[in-house]
Amino acid sequence: MDYQAVLQEVAAFARPLVGRGQVAQYIPALADVDAERFGIAVADVNGEVHGVGDWQEPFSVQSISKAFSLALVLAEGGERIWDRVGTEPSGNPFNSLVQLEYENGIPRNPFINAGALVVTDRLQSLTGDAGTTMLEFLRAESGNPDVAFDPVVAASEAEHGDRNAALAHFMASYGNLDNPVTTVLEHYFRQCAIRMSCRDLALAAAFLARHGVRNDGTRLLPAREAKQVNAVMLTCGTYDAAGSFAYRVGLPGKSGVGGGIVAVIPGRCTLCVWSPGLDTYGNSVAGVAALDHFTTVTGWSVF
Amino acid sequence: MDYQAVLQEVAAFARPLVGRGQVAQYIPALADVDAERFGIAVADVNGEVHGVGDWQEPFSVQSISKAFSLALVLAEGGERIWDRVGTEPSGNPFNSLVQLEYENGIPRNPFINAGALVVTDRLQSLTGDAGTTMLEFLRAESGNPDVAFDPVVAASEAEHGDRNAALAHFMASYGNLDNPVTTVLEHYFRQCAIRMSCRDLALAAAFLARHGVRNDGTRLLPAREAKQVNAVMLTCGTYDAAGSFAYRVGLPGKSGVGGGIVAVIPGRCTLCVWSPGLDTYGNSVAGVAALDHFTTVTGWSVF
Amino acid sequence: MDYQAVLQEVAAFARPLVGRGQVAQYIPALADVDAERFGIAVADVNGEVHGVGDWQEPFSVQSISKAFSLALVLAEGGERIWDRVGTEPSGNPFNSLVQLEYENGIPRNPFINAGALVVTDRLQSLTGDAGTTMLEFLRAESGNPDVAFDPVVAASEAEHGDRNAALAHFMASYGNLDNPVTTVLEHYFRQCAIRMSCRDLALAAAFLARHGVRNDGTRLLPAREAKQVNAVMLTCGTYDAAGSFAYRVGLPGKSGVGGGIVAVIPGRCTLCVWSPGLDTYGNSVAGVAALDHFTTVTGWSVF
Amino acid sequence: MDYQAVLQEVAAFARPLVGRGQVAQYIPALADVDAERFGIAVADVNGEVHGVGDWQEPFSVQSISKAFSLALVLAEGGERIWDRVGTEPSGNPFNSLVQLEYENGIPRNPFINAGALVVTDRLQSLTGDAGTTMLEFLRAESGNPDVAFDPVVAASEAEHGDRNAALAHFMASYGNLDNPVTTVLEHYFRQCAIRMSCRDLALAAAFLARHGVRNDGTRLLPAREAKQVNAVMLTCGTYDAAGSFAYRVGLPGKSGVGGGIVAVIPGRCTLCVWSPGLDTYGNSVAGVAALDHFTTVTGWSVF
Repeated sequence: MDYQAVLQEVAAFARPLVGRGQVAQYIPALADVDAERFGIAVADVNGEVHGVGDWQEPFSVQSISKAFSLALVLAEGGERIWDRVGTEPSGNPFNSLVQLEYENGIPRNPFINAGALVVTDRLQSLTGDAGTTMLEFLRAESGNPDVAFDPVVAASEAEHGDRNAALAHFMASYGNLDNPVTTVLEHYFRQCAIRMSCRDLALAAAFLARHGVRNDGTRLLPAREAKQVNAVMLTCGTYDAAGSFAYRVGLPGKSGVGGGIVAVIPGRCTLCVWSPGLDTYGNSVAGVAALDHFTTVTGWSVF
Repeated sequence: MDYQAVLQEVAAFARPLVGRGQVAQYIPALADVDAERFGIAVADVNGEVHGVGDWQEPFSVQSISKAFSLALVLAEGGERIWDRVGTEPSGNPFNSLVQLEYENGIPRNPFINAGALVVTDRLQSLTGDAGTTMLEFLRAESGNPDVAFDPVVAASEAEHGDRNAALAHFMASYGNLDNPVTTVLEHYFRQCAIRMSCRDLALAAAFLARHGVRNDGTRLLPAREAKQVNAVMLTCGTYDAAGSFAYRVGLPGKSGVGGGIVAVIPGRCTLCVWSPGLDTYGNSVAGVAALDHFTTVTGWSVF
Repeated sequence: MDYQAVLQEVAAFARPLVGRGQVAQYIPALADVDAERFGIAVADVNGEVHGVGDWQEPFSVQSISKAFSLALVLAEGGERIWDRVGTEPSGNPFNSLVQLEYENGIPRNPFINAGALVVTDRLQSLTGDAGTTMLEFLRAESGNPDVAFDPVVAASEAEHGDRNAALAHFMASYGNLDNPVTTVLEHYFRQCAIRMSCRDLALAAAFLARHGVRNDGTRLLPAREAKQVNAVMLTCGTYDAAGSFAYRVGLPGKSGVGGGIVAVIPGRCTLCVWSPGLDTYGNSVAGVAALDHFTTVTGWSVF
Repeated sequence: MDYQAVLQEVAAFARPLVGRGQVAQYIPALADVDAERFGIAVADVNGEVHGVGDWQEPFSVQSISKAFSLALVLAEGGERIWDRVGTEPSGNPFNSLVQLEYENGIPRNPFINAGALVVTDRLQSLTGDAGTTMLEFLRAESGNPDVAFDPVVAASEAEHGDRNAALAHFMASYGNLDNPVTTVLEHYFRQCAIRMSCRDLALAAAFLARHGVRNDGTRLLPAREAKQVNAVMLTCGTYDAAGSFAYRVGLPGKSGVGGGIVAVIPGRCTLCVWSPGLDTYGNSVAGVAALDHFTTVTGWSVF
């Protein structure tokens, strides 16, 4: 596969959609991002990485971090996390409290905000420092020691974090948080505020295409748990549009409101695309189109 | 691949679970089925079929018919069906009215009962006889002219059909049914009451592994639409346990409360497993375990 | 109390609001009503009746009939009806299916449509002809043998009755209907289609001001049950605006989308006001204002 | 009316129910209360007070404080509070987040916890010290300078306050709190933790029977606003059993999980009853029965 040529074609296809949609507005640090950016990178299972466009420019990973915190919790503590968070799609907007109430404080899956807070709480209990644990993992996998939190974004998230605070206190009322709400929120906001490029993210998520094996050849997860992460990404990874993403793109994927999406082709490669304009579900308009076209060109959908 | 040997091993693995769970009780004709039955069949993309156990014994297909009616509507009328039914997981029990109300009569997906009623209504409009259209298709693909409706089951479904009648009237109140409620219900109940064996079903769904091509080499669906059916099966095909099915089995699958499950390995083969004991979500206990083991043995999960 | 003078003042006060709001549109027979009509009548506990404006002109009683069917069921069958329908406000639009699902087919109260269908079903079981039973009662109390169903409205209700059919089938699926759905709906639609004037309705509901005693001095209900009807009217009688009606008017009241409202001042009198323009909750704009002013002028709120 | 004799009879009637139900368990300070206590007091509009049983023993007022904070906000700031909180029954358990989400952070009424938090926030903005404002009012009306917060209960509420913290953050996310969440919660928990006797409470709420006039003859509220408080108490004052309370007792009432209930007979008197055993809705079992019997004996229901 000539990845570079495919990425060129995909970028050309997606170009007219760049700037469409709406850049995330809920915090100023995100609202200021240039809507015209577009980058895409692919890391194959051999560790080779390719990219086009703004593929080396860091952006705010936001909810993409949820895939990494899930993997790290599985790596550190195994499948016991599934006692505290489900594996089913939510069928509701990503920050809904409704389902949480009907299901007694057990979030539907680890990629809605409530579920990610539980995963962060668990990672904090397992490691003593959830934020630093993730940062070190991402630096190691991307080979980029400059991967860092954006303190302005983290502070801004905290300032506008009442909805997440409500979710955290709500789960605490059901006994589904072990650490203090303020600790969990702090680490959660820091993880969301990590800045990485498409290149960094494609490399950092390459273990998901390699059935759990890291870039240095050591194993992060057993194949069974890597498969779990991919399955949950496919059914729950793109907010309330997971069904539509499966239907159009047909790959496990995890998006963030920073405009990034990581997608996995098991056994082959990991992709990361970035363009800040979001559709009404919170997924990058040009990013989804690019991934759709990539699977069309390569025939590599899982379906 | 020595399918016969693999099926033997899978059957041996699942055997201890046969009889576990609860046979569907809501109509007498289903409640009387022998809980100890187990069969599994595989039809590969070349049309070869293998099976073990009770793989040639007909059972009530129930909701498995929803996958065929979706495919037939796409074949007859194309993607306009997606204006009237969504592609997202429901996040709620399969017969819930709640989401339908919040979403103005547009069912979340074609595999919840409300969505299947809309699909049946559309198939009726496109063909003039939704029930017969499906029957003829299933007979042709399975090569079995004896495939038929079970009139006792269809009558029993109708007698206990108030919940489906409520769904149908509710959608009619939003203008999302074109035919009279009684007509739609009649064809819907007939489709659910079709009796087929694992062998018949694996052959009949082989077009989904063949990217839309029927057993006689003609094309039922464009590859793009076959992929849509598979994607919706993966995210919505096993009631409120689709996430867990994706996580354990990792294949597009459609289950029925008769105890059958059809699963697809795109490009390779279609499986059908049957065992009447159901878990709390309505999926065959031994059937899910068998498919889980099949993907473990073959390494053929999509993830 | 010089009722005639008070009614004159109330009518003058409400006059500027007549024509405001929206005449019910869901069936043609209601949409054609002249929005400029306004009438008000009062029947005191001694059987004296007064009125001003269009107080002798018949209109479609619609949901006001729900108060009479509740009273007749209590009269015929006593308090066992409360096993099948609750006494709590619904907190949701009057035709919601959501709560019904969470509460296993037991409607919240007898004045939401679902609850009224259960009451009609019970009245049918108790009398063999729910519609005629109500008609005879209303003719007797009003002293008007011309009180009748409007067959055009009843047919129109049935034609646009999918939502009510959904509710009825849904409750039937929980075993909370004894008669066939079509029978219940037929009697329900006939009751809604009764035409009466303010004069007729004030007289017909006078037993509620008289603690259960009919106009001929015989007792329809024990005082305890008359109090129950009044209490449920206050907490649930005006759709999703019962709290606001209690807060503004402070009387038990039952409204209908025909623009009528019956209100009760226990121990003193029964009022009926009519003006077809409805607010967003389905209550007569000028009617609510008139009742509000009546309680202000007389000081006769229950609070 | 010989109040003393009526109270004796009511107490004798309720006696067999004392100890029934369950004392509130969610904080230790409440769980330790003796279930066998029962007291009842009545304050008539002339300021005369009578009581029987444990009517002079202080208990935790809990949600009864919500009626006072509403009255004080109306007194200090007028009806603008109704822009931020509704007047409709909730139709859901008292601490539900569901409705709050569907209604964009505007609580249904001031007596569910979310609504009371908004009222407390407003009282804090209007007075600079919501807790002290209420305490001073209650001391003045009861004539008892010993009315005080129980610091143990307040601390315990805060420790188990995650559900209320979730509600407060959730409303803050909609912009419906002006003060910091921690400030609002502190004052809210202090108000709940006030200890008063039946005697104190009957006197303190006497202005509601006197159409807004305090015990010293000055006016706290215009008659119109006193009527509003009574109306909201009737439709929303007893958690998810307001309809049933209206139906049985037929009076405006506000209950608390400490086992107290204040009820108002406009123009006549205010009652307070206390017995710690609660029904499944959180209302005192013996208390509701006592009020029911009081209205039966006196014939003083509003219906």
